[in-house]
Amino acid sequence: MELTGKNYIAGNISAKGTATFKGVNPSDATELPTTFYEATPEEVAEAAVKGHEAFAVYRKKSGQEKADFLDAIADEINNLGNVLIERCSAETGLPPARIETERARTTGQLKLFATVLREGSWVDARIDTAIPDRKPMPRSDFRYMQKPLGVVGVFGASNFPLAFSVAGGDTASALASGCPVIVKGHPSHPGTCELVAMAINKAVEKTNMPKGVFSLVQGGSIAVGMALVTHPYVKAIGFTGSTGGGMAIFKAAINERDEPIPVYSEMGSTNPLFILPEALKEKSEEIAKGLTDSVTLGTGQFCTNPGLIFMNNDDNLEEFQKQTAKHFEEVEATAMLNKGIKAAFDRGVAELVNNPDIVKLAAKGKESSEGYKGIAHLFETNAKNFIEKAFLEEENFGPSTLNIVADSREELLASARKMKGHLTATLFATENDLANYTDLIEILEQKVGRLIINEFPTGVEVCHAMVHGGPFPATSNSRSTSVGTAAMLRFTRPVCYQNFPESLLPDELKTNNPLGIMRLFNGEYKR
Amino acid sequence: MELTGKNYIAGNISAKGTATFKGVNPSDATELPTTFYEATPEEVAEAAVKGHEAFAVYRKKSGQEKADFLDAIADEINNLGNVLIERCSAETGLPPARIETERARTTGQLKLFATVLREGSWVDARIDTAIPDRKPMPRSDFRYMQKPLGVVGVFGASNFPLAFSVAGGDTASALASGCPVIVKGHPSHPGTCELVAMAINKAVEKTNMPKGVFSLVQGGSIAVGMALVTHPYVKAIGFTGSTGGGMAIFKAAINERDEPIPVYSEMGSTNPLFILPEALKEKSEEIAKGLTDSVTLGTGQFCTNPGLIFMNNDDNLEEFQKQTAKHFEEVEATAMLNKGIKAAFDRGVAELVNNPDIVKLAAKGKESSEGYKGIAHLFETNAKNFIEKAFLEEENFGPSTLNIVADSREELLASARKMKGHLTATLFATENDLANYTDLIEILEQKVGRLIINEFPTGVEVCHAMVHGGPFPATSNSRSTSVGTAAMLRFTRPVCYQNFPESLLPDELKTNNPLGIMRLFNGEYKR
Repeated sequence: MELTGKNYIAGNISAKGTATFKGVNPSDATELPTTFYEATPEEVAEAAVKGHEAFAVYRKKSGQEKADFLDAIADEINNLGNVLIERCSAETGLPPARIETERARTTGQLKLFATVLREGSWVDARIDTAIPDRKPMPRSDFRYMQKPLGVVGVFGASNFPLAFSVAGGDTASALASGCPVIVKGHPSHPGTCELVAMAINKAVEKTNMPKGVFSLVQGGSIAVGMALVTHPYVKAIGFTGSTGGGMAIFKAAINERDEPIPVYSEMGSTNPLFILPEALKEKSEEIAKGLTDSVTLGTGQFCTNPGLIFMNNDDNLEEFQKQTAKHFEEVEATAMLNKGIKAAFDRGVAELVNNPDIVKLAAKGKESSEGYKGIAHLFETNAKNFIEKAFLEEENFGPSTLNIVADSREELLASARKMKGHLTATLFATENDLANYTDLIEILEQKVGRLIINEFPTGVEVCHAMVHGGPFPATSNSRSTSVGTAAMLRFTRPVCYQNFPESLLPDELKTNNPLGIMRLFNGEYKR
Repeated sequence: MELTGKNYIAGNISAKGTATFKGVNPSDATELPTTFYEATPEEVAEAAVKGHEAFAVYRKKSGQEKADFLDAIADEINNLGNVLIERCSAETGLPPARIETERARTTGQLKLFATVLREGSWVDARIDTAIPDRKPMPRSDFRYMQKPLGVVGVFGASNFPLAFSVAGGDTASALASGCPVIVKGHPSHPGTCELVAMAINKAVEKTNMPKGVFSLVQGGSIAVGMALVTHPYVKAIGFTGSTGGGMAIFKAAINERDEPIPVYSEMGSTNPLFILPEALKEKSEEIAKGLTDSVTLGTGQFCTNPGLIFMNNDDNLEEFQKQTAKHFEEVEATAMLNKGIKAAFDRGVAELVNNPDIVKLAAKGKESSEGYKGIAHLFETNAKNFIEKAFLEEENFGPSTLNIVADSREELLASARKMKGHLTATLFATENDLANYTDLIEILEQKVGRLIINEFPTGVEVCHAMVHGGPFPATSNSRSTSVGTAAMLRFTRPVCYQNFPESLLPDELKTNNPLGIMRLFNGEYKR
């Protein structure tokens, strides 16, 4: 498990370029051991060609075989042991306990996809059998199922170095759907990326998968990413990161390729949270504490961090804000993921601090701490400002949130109507509040992928019913989720087999249903 | 049922512009009565605003209510009676019997979507219930279903004036999914468009739907289409037509809007057909006759028209080509849909006739017939030419096909490997042929949406298992179908409800399952 600093191209270690970089510990800004080699466009192309070749084999693997592969990846990640936890914690500034939780989530989601593959019904099999005596024309036999697209490029995220990185949600769902994967590792945690790549390669060997089913290319330059996005053998992209990066990839995949491909960019969100009047009165202290924890969790570096808190201007407002401010003042500054993220956060905070329409309610004063620590900030403005100033809706990635005070119910609704797309929206509300604000719920339902009542949005459960997605600009494709088992469907397309002999049909579509999956058979759901 | 020549904006007749045009009978090139008013960008915007307002109401209609609406549209189309058949036949040059069949398909597909809505399981409901005592963290309650996107813009096709026009597959699937529709009528059959719009408006009244749920804007200019594609309230586009038109719309929807939207452009395909050696020997005459009928059906103006016919160069080739040529010579020239389509077809034919690498095997000589008649053409080239010359893979919309003769099995496979995406691929093959060409089947499966054995690709069944789609350039989005009940999923996105009280959940997601639909409940499919 010695780090090499090199790229992993279809099972081979490769370092053909000259550009190098090092990991940095954001807690104290010191460089970490091992020099990493940025992949060249030629290395990316080699990964794509090997992935394409592997696809011819991998696409025919059974659900059981792919499930064994995913389980083996999970096992090999666990086998990395403390080496992974230590390196990952050093590269991200996240405490070991958090990395352990994230490792459990990462292996858990691989294993959940494995159960879906073993069960098998996810392919949406549909069978309409022949009706030879139909008038005026006979009907032929049609059978439909989801099939994998081909090589998928994955851009790892900075903020989940395991769960949304090399063997994270995008990789797990793409491999589950039958697609080879090329990961562009995030340059903030290159050692973590390499360790996980080692684990995947061991699983490839152990379960006898074609080596080209997985490659890892390292580096932070635009050239590496664009080589991946524009390669003709790459058929889809999964991305989690900034709006700028996500949109550049999305547009390149349409405008810079002969064949446009789907791009699933999850680009960030400010996750509006509404505290309705009775809840503000009755649960003020509970919400103030929970909100502080949610905003500052992981130094505020969650895609689902609630950054816009709406409430009415009533008698309970002052007490709530006082309580929240007190909690914010008690938050200890912790490391952000890297220098760039810390600098961007500080710029965003300064913009609000210097804005005459914004009041700073709380911030623990600048400490002379080492590393890239993010200081929790609580701001306030009114709904009129929010409605007029579009930039107030934008994400400031880090431990900061903006209270938005509405003078009337109508102003609260107008704020919601004016919003763009987000990953989540949350309501804190009593039963009466909900009855009084059904119109607000209807507006929010059209703005987000996940709508939550009386819980905080941070923490994204990996399950069948999760939607981690939402209307633009939260993502480039609102019709998908990047967390949960439905994520597999991003990397497939339907194929119809007409008048096929039984022997040539995939098992999923054979008449006697050897896999025992749920199918739509002549319009009826049955096994 | 008097034609007004005007646009239908949310139930109101509107003609604010000055640009006008007339329908033309392509059988004799004469103008038809009624002057039509092209919609202005302001009228398109009005339709979008009214559609957006209607969405607030229509999105909450139950499956039963939407089903009644679709059934009523089908009934009102039938109630148009012979007036529709006659006008449509006059505008398209298609014989009345064909229009009657197409009407039955159009009303049949509306009624099929209605049955899917009444059954209700199409929303892909997923429920993961709370686990309060889970360690280390409790699990909340998550419920997921597909919800409609908003106003959908539909560009009617020329070649199916009913089944892919105002109340065609795109409109039916969008209305079924809960989206209001604005149709941009095809300027080749404006009277047909208006008659069907009248039928839809009657159904809107009869079933008490919000008037903005449907609008028809007429006109052939780019301005009308682009006003629709770029309006902020329009959330998705369905298009069937040329590659140029489809790509312009697809790119505008990404590059010319603040919020990119999904575009489903079905842009054409040459539908390769392979005649394998034993089949060529044993079924030569049957295939020759069937192929001629398939290529010349509807004057060759089918998206699934087989335009590339591959076969090996063996002893049976000459006899097959002689038979096919004889049949082609017997085909009577019939009207094409309009002057532009006829001119483009003649240009395409001339390009092949003048190409030294292409042999013309059959064409009934130029008749001095009136109107825009298309003459059936049969061409031949070899696989080497096909592999080298990319343009030979392009569609020549009309009654023309190209035989491609391979000198070896390997050359046949290389031709298949070299191909881009198509809607369909077809194999004529005996059992032995299929056993000898499994590699060909695997290649083709990755190139098309529908793979057919021993039947011709023309004729697209409307059923649950149909895929009318395929990899680029056949469509702009291979992950969808524009025919069959899965077409509804193009216009929806998943929404997750977390920790919702029962009373606020949609019926599809209530625990006691009042609609009795199939759901994924804690990982198990059940009702």
